[in-house]
Amino acid sequence: MTSPHERLRDLGLTLPKPPAPAAAYVQWRIVGIGDGRSLLYVAGQISRDGDQVLSGRCPDQVSIAEAAHRARQCALSVLSQIEAAVGLDNVVEMSQLMGFVLSQDGFGDQPKVMNGASELLIEVLGAAGRHTRAALGTNALPFSATVEIAAVAVVRSPLT
Amino acid sequence: MTSPHERLRDLGLTLPKPPAPAAAYVQWRIVGIGDGRSLLYVAGQISRDGDQVLSGRCPDQVSIAEAAHRARQCALSVLSQIEAAVGLDNVVEMSQLMGFVLSQDGFGDQPKVMNGASELLIEVLGAAGRHTRAALGTNALPFSATVEIAAVAVVRSPLT
Amino acid sequence: MTSPHERLRDLGLTLPKPPAPAAAYVQWRIVGIGDGRSLLYVAGQISRDGDQVLSGRCPDQVSIAEAAHRARQCALSVLSQIEAAVGLDNVVEMSQLMGFVLSQDGFGDQPKVMNGASELLIEVLGAAGRHTRAALGTNALPFSATVEIAAVAVVRSPLT
Repeated sequence: MTSPHERLRDLGLTLPKPPAPAAAYVQWRIVGIGDGRSLLYVAGQISRDGDQVLSGRCPDQVSIAEAAHRARQCALSVLSQIEAAVGLDNVVEMSQLMGFVLSQDGFGDQPKVMNGASELLIEVLGAAGRHTRAALGTNALPFSATVEIAAVAVVRSPLT
Repeated sequence: MTSPHERLRDLGLTLPKPPAPAAAYVQWRIVGIGDGRSLLYVAGQISRDGDQVLSGRCPDQVSIAEAAHRARQCALSVLSQIEAAVGLDNVVEMSQLMGFVLSQDGFGDQPKVMNGASELLIEVLGAAGRHTRAALGTNALPFSATVEIAAVAVVRSPLT
Repeated sequence: MTSPHERLRDLGLTLPKPPAPAAAYVQWRIVGIGDGRSLLYVAGQISRDGDQVLSGRCPDQVSIAEAAHRARQCALSVLSQIEAAVGLDNVVEMSQLMGFVLSQDGFGDQPKVMNGASELLIEVLGAAGRHTRAALGTNALPFSATVEIAAVAVVRSPLT
């Protein structure tokens, strides 16, 4: 069994610096649920490359393939928040992903876009990365980001 | 007290075969919270009739009444996932429904649409089916489905 | 340390009467998670002033500043539901806010709007009010409300 960090290295990926909140909120909160485990709520992570927001609507301004890549960037930001909160080695499972894709009216391939995020989580976390998911479209997102993903994970935590 | 399965039968309803995930995710995850109970996260269920997606925007392409019927189909899919996960008899309560209705700009009757789902849950689960809910509109959903509903339930579970 | 009720008074704020559900659901559900604590799920609260829905799209019909004020009203409704459920003094922390802003295509300042809600929670609850958040846009909300916010809190509860 390789660790999440080894898998990230094997994939040639580096976790981004966990983005600071855009405003008056926090990026994660931990809720003990007993048995040494906690729910970890992760704030909505928008698609970005470093400090630059990856913006534009799918598919008229941003292709499905590129949007899927951006969903993958969101998932990397989710992982970077989890790393900052408790460390990736402490992920028991990803429970829920809520993914929103900036969509042209009538666009219906949000699942293909969100697969960019889903597959990354499984590549990095293995079976622990398997998650429930809602793939949704919307006409407007912060800074016109192409994708925004919020998550709930179960983690081992010294706090409980 | 009749059981959920008896109520389904009395309503003339059959649970659909639990739909397979559209992509790289799972339909439910169970998180033990102690005392023999678990949170059950259920992935977003889109409106469908068997293998066919029930698509179209409310109210210009699909009437409110028909959209409510489709929300009810989503709720049946949620129930079919719970049945597959732990069995309907083990539902302690439905905690949260997040419901998204494919909406024309300016449409504001999402609560009427979502009542199709809410009422079905109460008809089948009784008091355990009473839930918190967010009824939301959106301009785009997977496969242009009319409704998508994600849920969190509390269930009795042998896993905890 | 002042109490949430003292802070509300110092802010010149009065909790609204907790709005009744618009339809077939409940405003909150409590899920024990051990150690005398519970998750409290709060249903989506739309922007309103008393019985009147505060409707209109941002920013063409409602300014960002006014929309932020309406997000603040949503947060007050969230607090009024928590007060009705377990009392504000029993809030351990706000875990998650999901906020939806009725948005013109291309609008991207949802974070500024949602700050109206986020800042209110911190003003009233102090450190316990710090929360994760997803700020999202949408083309359609119930009754064309400007903002809708659903929440999950951790509370001390005699039920667990």
